[in-house]
Amino acid sequence: MSQYWSPAVKALTPYIPGEQPRERIIKLNTNENPYPPAPGVGQALRDYATDHLRLYPDPTSAALRAKLAETYGVENQQVFVGNGSDEVLALAFQAFFCHGAPLDAPSITYSFYPVYANLYNVELRTHPLNAQWEVDLESLGAASARSGVIFANPNAPTGHAHSLEDIETLLKRVTDRVVLVDEAYVDFGAESAIGLIDRYPNLLVTGTFSKSRSLAGLRLGYAIGSVELIDGLHRVKDSFNSYPVDSLASLVGIAALDDKAHFNASRERVVTTRERTRQRLEALGFEVLPSKANFVLAQHPEHAGAQLFAGLRERGVLVRHFNTQELNNFLRITIGTDDEMDSLIEALEAICG
Amino acid sequence: MSQYWSPAVKALTPYIPGEQPRERIIKLNTNENPYPPAPGVGQALRDYATDHLRLYPDPTSAALRAKLAETYGVENQQVFVGNGSDEVLALAFQAFFCHGAPLDAPSITYSFYPVYANLYNVELRTHPLNAQWEVDLESLGAASARSGVIFANPNAPTGHAHSLEDIETLLKRVTDRVVLVDEAYVDFGAESAIGLIDRYPNLLVTGTFSKSRSLAGLRLGYAIGSVELIDGLHRVKDSFNSYPVDSLASLVGIAALDDKAHFNASRERVVTTRERTRQRLEALGFEVLPSKANFVLAQHPEHAGAQLFAGLRERGVLVRHFNTQELNNFLRITIGTDDEMDSLIEALEAICG
Repeated sequence: MSQYWSPAVKALTPYIPGEQPRERIIKLNTNENPYPPAPGVGQALRDYATDHLRLYPDPTSAALRAKLAETYGVENQQVFVGNGSDEVLALAFQAFFCHGAPLDAPSITYSFYPVYANLYNVELRTHPLNAQWEVDLESLGAASARSGVIFANPNAPTGHAHSLEDIETLLKRVTDRVVLVDEAYVDFGAESAIGLIDRYPNLLVTGTFSKSRSLAGLRLGYAIGSVELIDGLHRVKDSFNSYPVDSLASLVGIAALDDKAHFNASRERVVTTRERTRQRLEALGFEVLPSKANFVLAQHPEHAGAQLFAGLRERGVLVRHFNTQELNNFLRITIGTDDEMDSLIEALEAICG
Repeated sequence: MSQYWSPAVKALTPYIPGEQPRERIIKLNTNENPYPPAPGVGQALRDYATDHLRLYPDPTSAALRAKLAETYGVENQQVFVGNGSDEVLALAFQAFFCHGAPLDAPSITYSFYPVYANLYNVELRTHPLNAQWEVDLESLGAASARSGVIFANPNAPTGHAHSLEDIETLLKRVTDRVVLVDEAYVDFGAESAIGLIDRYPNLLVTGTFSKSRSLAGLRLGYAIGSVELIDGLHRVKDSFNSYPVDSLASLVGIAALDDKAHFNASRERVVTTRERTRQRLEALGFEVLPSKANFVLAQHPEHAGAQLFAGLRERGVLVRHFNTQELNNFLRITIGTDDEMDSLIEALEAICG
């Protein structure tokens, strides 16, 4: 604490991202893609005329937004880009969720949402997951006065994804405020709600290049929605930072979007390994929640989550353990390569004996 | 306007950056460096193992902060980095200037400050420049209740810089809140206040890689100050976006800091061209404010600023014209290469003929 800090800053509880280990380790803790980005990315960087870095980027990121629009079959003005989907989400909180009423969100979801809520002084009204560990969309949409609705689909860290039909049912009920669907993990088997934006002007879909496009190191995220929502995001962004997406990030993002074959091959490999891993974990006695993401949430009836986490860490395998009452017994395991998952299973066999 | 926007968002007036022309033009409007970044920057990008982009960056940017600390003779924990100094400034507004009292700033300065103030609901108390178009530090430090003090040194768009002695006099008077000195242009002939941070725990100095290090396209900025101020910035940053500085930006920033010879040669060339340009503008009858930055602010007794701006644009030279009462007659001219400045002078000769 410091006398110089703004009073509200004293009350912040910052987000703590998954550990970035420096030693050699099998890293299954932050949902990174085990496969490299598209080969065109490296080529683009090698071919780049570095002298251009002396010039400011295009503040509107027109080329990257046009490529995203083409990729997702929407108009350029329906696309917003930012420094990772974390920045896009933060700006969306400020743009849409500050109406002096609670924001409806699942009780278990991406743990950055409560941090944003605290930063922007938004009251979060949380809704428990149902008995199957699924986001309860009915409960989320049932409130009377609200500032908006936010949830991840697939949800994190559970991996469950709702059908488009379920999401549309919610959108028919919530028309007064923004419904934000965070699709960070959508490319590993779930359905995107982007196709609904033309019918629901209050639907905002966010996405990231960090997972399915193997570019976590680059910081690129986007939002897709009606022109009025995208205008609102630009209004806040242009009051905060004119150029959050730098020239190299635009270049690399476009190169990644250009290679659909690489994108599809990479995500299919992850999905295949996920199903193989699920079976092997179940064979070891784990309960594994059905996942449409690049991770699984799993618990063992006889071994506590913290113990398994520590045992894996000793054996050079890093997974994510959440120290909360509800998730305390679970491990969230990122899907790596088949070799990495073999090492995980071997280590778990040794621990669970 | 949209019913979905947060009410405060409706009242924002976003910052409008200088135009980024797409056609071939002599671009002297956004204070970019006419010389390329250090050769090591291109080498670092060509040598980079693109596969690493699949992993998240270090959220603490430890390597880049250590290199900045070494460069400026401070401790690592006294350094904060962000996505351009614009983001650093925005986070500083939120971290330090939200105390429910006015923030003291010059009336003519970087035009993003009032935009941040509006975004964070901070009242800005502006102080006119003195008769020599200099920031009036005495007036800035004279207020009783305040949330802080902010000014640019050298100031923009005037180019005037105060001595360290003047800044220390202000720091002796303002001890209760943060004094933020924005040193975006300091490397073109002014003195940095970084040496004062150990004696003044409320002094925050911000800087950028966009100007003297020729990396506007990369978005890298920093703040240097006491550990408690840097902690406050991290607190806000970690509630907003864990990784605003991506892996490539860190890599490139370190390569730029490594080449002191290139840095010194580049800024010395700009300073030499600035003095040559000043003399030639004066010979054409312009009043040129003394500048320690990579631009000059100039006006002509017989030609209105808007006319000169339009005439130059017609002749393929883009400068910056501010459409405000006080600056309406001025042009802000970025210092380019000698060849570019020759073209500017020729065009002005034709116009003022």
